[in-house]
Amino acid sequence: MIVNFKTYSEASGTKALALSKILEGVQRETGIQVIVAAQTSDLFPLSQHVEIPVYAQHVDPQPQGGHTGHIAPEAVKESGARGTLLNHSERRLELATLEECVRRTGVVGLTSVVCANNVATAAACAAFEPDIVAVEPPELIGTGRAVSKAKPEVVTDAVARIRDINKKVVILCGAGISEAHDASSALNLGAQGILVSSAVVKATDQRKVALDMAREMSRFT
Amino acid sequence: MIVNFKTYSEASGTKALALSKILEGVQRETGIQVIVAAQTSDLFPLSQHVEIPVYAQHVDPQPQGGHTGHIAPEAVKESGARGTLLNHSERRLELATLEECVRRTGVVGLTSVVCANNVATAAACAAFEPDIVAVEPPELIGTGRAVSKAKPEVVTDAVARIRDINKKVVILCGAGISEAHDASSALNLGAQGILVSSAVVKATDQRKVALDMAREMSRFT
Amino acid sequence: MIVNFKTYSEASGTKALALSKILEGVQRETGIQVIVAAQTSDLFPLSQHVEIPVYAQHVDPQPQGGHTGHIAPEAVKESGARGTLLNHSERRLELATLEECVRRTGVVGLTSVVCANNVATAAACAAFEPDIVAVEPPELIGTGRAVSKAKPEVVTDAVARIRDINKKVVILCGAGISEAHDASSALNLGAQGILVSSAVVKATDQRKVALDMAREMSRFT
Amino acid sequence: MIVNFKTYSEASGTKALALSKILEGVQRETGIQVIVAAQTSDLFPLSQHVEIPVYAQHVDPQPQGGHTGHIAPEAVKESGARGTLLNHSERRLELATLEECVRRTGVVGLTSVVCANNVATAAACAAFEPDIVAVEPPELIGTGRAVSKAKPEVVTDAVARIRDINKKVVILCGAGISEAHDASSALNLGAQGILVSSAVVKATDQRKVALDMAREMSRFT
Repeated sequence: MIVNFKTYSEASGTKALALSKILEGVQRETGIQVIVAAQTSDLFPLSQHVEIPVYAQHVDPQPQGGHTGHIAPEAVKESGARGTLLNHSERRLELATLEECVRRTGVVGLTSVVCANNVATAAACAAFEPDIVAVEPPELIGTGRAVSKAKPEVVTDAVARIRDINKKVVILCGAGISEAHDASSALNLGAQGILVSSAVVKATDQRKVALDMAREMSRFT
Repeated sequence: MIVNFKTYSEASGTKALALSKILEGVQRETGIQVIVAAQTSDLFPLSQHVEIPVYAQHVDPQPQGGHTGHIAPEAVKESGARGTLLNHSERRLELATLEECVRRTGVVGLTSVVCANNVATAAACAAFEPDIVAVEPPELIGTGRAVSKAKPEVVTDAVARIRDINKKVVILCGAGISEAHDASSALNLGAQGILVSSAVVKATDQRKVALDMAREMSRFT
Repeated sequence: MIVNFKTYSEASGTKALALSKILEGVQRETGIQVIVAAQTSDLFPLSQHVEIPVYAQHVDPQPQGGHTGHIAPEAVKESGARGTLLNHSERRLELATLEECVRRTGVVGLTSVVCANNVATAAACAAFEPDIVAVEPPELIGTGRAVSKAKPEVVTDAVARIRDINKKVVILCGAGISEAHDASSALNLGAQGILVSSAVVKATDQRKVALDMAREMSRFT
Repeated sequence: MIVNFKTYSEASGTKALALSKILEGVQRETGIQVIVAAQTSDLFPLSQHVEIPVYAQHVDPQPQGGHTGHIAPEAVKESGARGTLLNHSERRLELATLEECVRRTGVVGLTSVVCANNVATAAACAAFEPDIVAVEPPELIGTGRAVSKAKPEVVTDAVARIRDINKKVVILCGAGISEAHDASSALNLGAQGILVSSAVVKATDQRKVALDMAREMSRFT
C-alpha cells in the first residue's frame, strides 16, 4: 500500500511527518507494508524520523552534474528515500526518458514504481522491467469511484497483459480508491497492492481510513 | 553572490552541508552576502544547519493539491528555503509559466531570481518584476570564459535594457565566472552581484576560490 | 483582423479553402486587412488559391536539418505563408525559445504575431520586438465573453505597458470576441486589430459574422 | 524503405518534390516499396504529385478543435498523407501521448510508424500494436556507422523482444545506414525494411544511393 502525498498541504512539511507517523502505526498494527510517496523537500526529514519506506514522486534521468533544477536519483537516494514513483499521470515522462529513469533508479538502488494510465501503457511499462507497475486510469483519480469497482476490466486486463510480458513485476492498482472494500476488491482482481492518495490524505480521520484499508487487505492475504 | 550547487555530487547531501558551512564562513569574513541554491532534497537539512540563505533551483507554479512530482513554492518555503532560481538555462520555463512562478513566489514569500540567457530575454524577465534578474549566456556556462570578459557588452546592454523597464530589480551576471577578477569586472560593468557554480563547487580548494571572489567584490563596494 | 483556424474541422482542408475565399471577399468589401492563421498542412494550398495573407499557427526555432517532426520557419515561408502566430495559449513556448523564434522569423521574412496571456507577459513579449503582439486572456477564449467587454482593463493596461517598452509593435486583442461590437470596443480601448477564431469559424453564416466585424472596424478607422 | 526528409533544405518545398519523384522512380525500377516522410507543409503538394506513399513525421493526439499550432491526424489524412512517424528521437513523445497517437492514427486511417531508441523501448512500443516499429539508436543517427554493422545485437534483440509481444508488427531498423550493404545486412538480422535519411537526402547523387539500397534489398527478398 503506497500513499501518495502529492503536493497536498495536508501532507506537506510537519503535516507530512505527522501523517507518516500515523501510517507507520498502521503498518505495525496490520502487518501490511505501507509506503509514503512524499514531496522531494520532505524526503530527508521523513526518512530520518519514520521507519516505513519513504519514496519520491518523480526523478529526472540526468546524471549528477550541470543540471540545475533537476531531481537526481542519487540525491533522492542520499536523502534516505528508498524508491520513487515514475510517470504518474500528473507528471508524465517521455517514453525514452521513462525507460532511462527505470534503468537509472535500478543502478542507484531505488525501487521503481512506474504508473500507467491504461492497459496498453501498463503492458508497455512492464517491458522496462521496473520493480512495480501501478495502473491508474486518470479519469478516476480523486473521484471516489474506485477503479476496482468502476472499471474492473482495466485491472484484470492490465494484470493479464503485464503477466504476458513480465512474470515478476509487482502490480498495484489505484485511482478513486476510497473505501476499505475498494482495496480488497483490487486484490481480488489480481492486483498485489494499491496506490491511494486523497482518500487517506484528505480524510478527517486519516488513521481510520488507512487502518480500515490495511485491515481489509490483511484479511485478504 | 549566489552559488548554484546544480546536481553536482560535490554539492549534494553531506557535501552540500560542508560546502554551505564553508560559504557561511566566507560571508562572515568578507561581509559579502553569499546564498546557496541547493537541490530540493537538500533544502531542509541545509536550512536547519546554516545561517546564510538557502534557495531552491526551481519551483513549479501549481497550487498545493493533486500535483504528483511537482515542487510547490509552499513546500520550498516550509523547508526553510528563502528564495528560488527560476528559468535557469538548464531548466527553462514557458513564458506564461515563468510569469506565474514569479507571482506565486512573491505571494508565498520567496525571493525570485529569474535567469535570462541573453539581453532580450533579460529585458522581458524584468517586465515580470522579480526580485532579481541573473543574465547568463548558456554558451559560456562551465567554460571558464567569464561573461564579463568574453562578452562584456551582454552585461552592459542587459543592464541598460533592464533599467529601461524596471528600476528596482537587482541585476546579477553569471556564466564562466572562474577567477576573482571576473567577479569585480562584472560589478564594473553594472551588475550588482554574480551567479557562480562549477568554479566554486568543483574547486580543489572551494573556500579559497569563493573567498577570493568575495574579497574582490567587497573591495569593489 | 486575424482569423485563427485552430484545428477546427470547419476550417481544415477543403473547408479551410472555402472559408479563406469568404474572408478574401470580406477584405475586398470592407478594406479591412484579413489574415488567416491556418494549419501547417493547409499553408501551401491556401497560399496558392487566395490573395489574403496566410499565416502559420506555430513554428519551431530549429534551423533546417536533422529535426524530424519540427516546423522550420523556412519551410513555412517556402509554402507561401507570410507570417506566423507564436506562443498561443494552446501552444505555449519557453521564454528563450520564443525569443529565438521571433528572431528566426525575422531573418526568414515571416511576420511574427506573439500571443500573450496577460498584461505582464504582453509587456515581456514587446521586449522581443516582434511585428505584432496579441493579448488574449485564455480564460475568455471560446466563451463568447469578449475581453474588450469582460476585462477592458486588460486591453488598456496591456497597451500602456507595451507602449512603455516598444513604440512600434502592432497591438491586437482577442479572446471571446463574438459580436461586431466587440471588435470596435477593442479598437476603442487602444488595440489596432483583433484576433478571432470560433466566432467566425463555427458560425452558421461565417461570412455574415466576419463581414459585420470588419464593417464595424472600418467604421472606426 | 522509408526516406525521412527531416527538415533538410535538400528535401523541402520544390526540392522535396524533386526527390520524391526520384524515389518514385526507384520504386518502379526495383519493386521495393519506397515511402517518403515529409514536412507537414509539404504533405499536400507531394501527395498531389507522386504515387508513392507520403507520410508525416509527427502528429499530435488532440482531437480537431481548439488546439492552435497542433498537427491533427485528421488534417494530415486530409492532406493526402497515408501514415506518420511517431516518437522519432528528434521528436519524442510522452508514453501516454504516444499510445494515444497510435490509437488515433488507427481510427483516422493513417499507418503508424513508431520509432524506438533501443531494445527496451522497441518492446514497449510493440505493446501499442502500431503498424510498424522502427528501431533507431540515436547515437548512430547521421554518423554513417550503420546500426546493422555497429550494433547488430540491437537489431536481433529488438526483433526477438518485439516478436515475443507482437507477432504482426512490421519491424524496420535505421540509424547510420549509408551504403547498400547496410540495407541488406539489416534484413539479414531480421528487420523487414529500413528507415534512412541523410544518406539519401544529402547525397550528391540521391538517385544512385537510393537505387543501390533498393536493389540490394530486392536481391534479398
